[in-house]
Amino acid sequence: MAVNLPLPIPEKLTAVSGIELGHAEAGIRKANRKDVLVMKLANTATVAGVFTKNRFCAAPVQLCKEHLGALKADAPIRALVINTGNANAGTGEAGLANAQETCNALAKLLDCAPTQILPFSTGVILEPLPVDRLVAGLPQAIENLQEDNWYNAAQSIMTTDTQPKAASRQVVINGQTITLTGISKGAGMIKPNMATMLGFLAFDAKVAQPVLEKLTRDVADRSFNCITIDGDTSTNDSFIVVATGTAGVEVASTDTPEYAALYAAVLGLSQELAQMIVRDGEGATKFMTVTIEEGKDAEECRKIGYSIAHSPLVKTAFFASDPNLGRILAAIGYAGVEDLDVSKINLYLDDVWVAKNGGRNPDYQEADGQRVMKQSEITIRVKLGRGKADATIWTCDLSHEYVSINADYRS
Amino acid sequence: MAVNLPLPIPEKLTAVSGIELGHAEAGIRKANRKDVLVMKLANTATVAGVFTKNRFCAAPVQLCKEHLGALKADAPIRALVINTGNANAGTGEAGLANAQETCNALAKLLDCAPTQILPFSTGVILEPLPVDRLVAGLPQAIENLQEDNWYNAAQSIMTTDTQPKAASRQVVINGQTITLTGISKGAGMIKPNMATMLGFLAFDAKVAQPVLEKLTRDVADRSFNCITIDGDTSTNDSFIVVATGTAGVEVASTDTPEYAALYAAVLGLSQELAQMIVRDGEGATKFMTVTIEEGKDAEECRKIGYSIAHSPLVKTAFFASDPNLGRILAAIGYAGVEDLDVSKINLYLDDVWVAKNGGRNPDYQEADGQRVMKQSEITIRVKLGRGKADATIWTCDLSHEYVSINADYRS
Repeated sequence: MAVNLPLPIPEKLTAVSGIELGHAEAGIRKANRKDVLVMKLANTATVAGVFTKNRFCAAPVQLCKEHLGALKADAPIRALVINTGNANAGTGEAGLANAQETCNALAKLLDCAPTQILPFSTGVILEPLPVDRLVAGLPQAIENLQEDNWYNAAQSIMTTDTQPKAASRQVVINGQTITLTGISKGAGMIKPNMATMLGFLAFDAKVAQPVLEKLTRDVADRSFNCITIDGDTSTNDSFIVVATGTAGVEVASTDTPEYAALYAAVLGLSQELAQMIVRDGEGATKFMTVTIEEGKDAEECRKIGYSIAHSPLVKTAFFASDPNLGRILAAIGYAGVEDLDVSKINLYLDDVWVAKNGGRNPDYQEADGQRVMKQSEITIRVKLGRGKADATIWTCDLSHEYVSINADYRS
Repeated sequence: MAVNLPLPIPEKLTAVSGIELGHAEAGIRKANRKDVLVMKLANTATVAGVFTKNRFCAAPVQLCKEHLGALKADAPIRALVINTGNANAGTGEAGLANAQETCNALAKLLDCAPTQILPFSTGVILEPLPVDRLVAGLPQAIENLQEDNWYNAAQSIMTTDTQPKAASRQVVINGQTITLTGISKGAGMIKPNMATMLGFLAFDAKVAQPVLEKLTRDVADRSFNCITIDGDTSTNDSFIVVATGTAGVEVASTDTPEYAALYAAVLGLSQELAQMIVRDGEGATKFMTVTIEEGKDAEECRKIGYSIAHSPLVKTAFFASDPNLGRILAAIGYAGVEDLDVSKINLYLDDVWVAKNGGRNPDYQEADGQRVMKQSEITIRVKLGRGKADATIWTCDLSHEYVSINADYRS
């Protein structure tokens, strides 16, 4: 039921020099399924990440933060390892030991220190990670390592996703072509901070560590942190950006034209990958862009945007193509913006002016609302009339299928 | 699909002296349906209310607040008027004028001032109230006025409710029997502040205005403000307590044994009425009690309780009777309690100890979780291990039926 989600074409996913990808079928949860991915990085690479704010963050997330937090120049991150089928979350000390064992095993195979490995897991929470099967699958993944393997990589990190999510693009900086490729996964338990379950993006420019960290945070705030499917923030969400440093272009600081060009390219690709998650939202039949304008600050715009995007009543009305648009006003009203003057609010559905100064627009015709509601892509636009800030959130509708998928997820 | 929701038996709903109820079929939205209710009060009555915090609060809610805020001793509230089929919300100035016109018309019929009337509406938002039909129905409602008419009253305020919600009880204070009867409605767009769409409760003791106001606020915080179905706070939520003052018992201050006895009775009845709303939650198949214990303060307990109770993933797992209990840990983790130490958290499902010190309890058997998940009434108990505060939230599961109801609500 994905909404206008392009199936990635393997030949169009461009290899990024300095990063090799290898997949394996380790039987973590089910047999005959790609469920382990290793990404091996050139020793020129820098890596930055943004992680879930869930207090029950998974054991691998804890190790990722630890390894990235104690980075040394002479011991860069050399590989990422991702498993599906088990989140290794809510698993206590044993879970941490299992994540550590995964790092140890891969480090041994790649001849580096365990702190140079970043581990990731996704899947069911509160169940012990079958670390023996995971470790046993690593040699197969290493055998498969190659730069031109992004399609298999995208497949290897899927859980309830209906199809792999991947995209590539290029940008010319100082006359030199920089290649960017990324993959993402996730279709439920999706909420800001972090919104994705997993997103990995690599490019071949060289970027200093602090610069890459700022770029990653800023991009996340305008891409993976702007999507929501069901308001559930996962324990495992991670967004990782890798600069392999093999292309001969260097971005040394944030106030350069090179940075601006790179930022725009990374942001564009990240938004594309993030929106793919929404387009593949569990049971989604509609893709909705919620834009809040004329706010006092971006924070209140985001609050109102999420309030609309999380409302089960709004989401079911969109599923039904029913212009029951008062539900949007209700969601604006309970967003928690205390001094909101509703008499200044205007609401548009695409080009249709629905609510004017807090009440129904006298010129609004239900037939016009109905016309827009039947589309598969719809923009909800709210003007607050109290400032100049804005924010955009992407979300999907709530269907019977969402309930079916989540009632059956483990079976 | 209501969960153990008792059908009220008309003969068991006890009349409360000093309050008469009259219903009408005014054709507000559909023909041949009780959709208007008038509650006429003795001139000895005091009235207090708690209302939605939604900024888009409906026109009648605005008038209710105005009338209760400017109460004068010689001009008490004389009547309540409720219509279903239209919320008169998101209707701007015209909506306010229509609510005012309703008060004017009823005041004329009852020979009092319009400020002595409290108006309520529930139904679709953003559509003009057909005030002419409402006003035309008032004489019929007045003709039907009688004290022993609570069952019809409960029917008259239904929208997507599958059955009327009403209950009575009695309490003896100073040797005298006080009778309490209440009705409630609501089955979706249900979230704390206020959690109910509409709740009305009356008893025949005499209570001074400031005492009744405190009693109403305190009771709401432990009943109607502790339930959630879908996290959507309505524009029209109202909870009203009427003390008719006809029984010869007076409660003059809050620090008396009389107050304690009355408070316990009102709270018990209010919790019963509030839980009925959850039991009739749109599409509900399970009734869940979420109890958070050992918190630093009640606020953080409520935060975590609502986080669990609002999680679509938790709710669908309960619908499926699938003990996918890691979803509960995830919801605890993203509740927004910043300094939460998850290693101190214990989770129980009824009598089954699921998570111990933040990880899976080694003694936990999935068969035990499965056994509890199959029940229609389940308690989720979380011990935070950081204090002495607690809170309880009542909620229901999320089923296909919820989506169907809300995709079809207007049709």
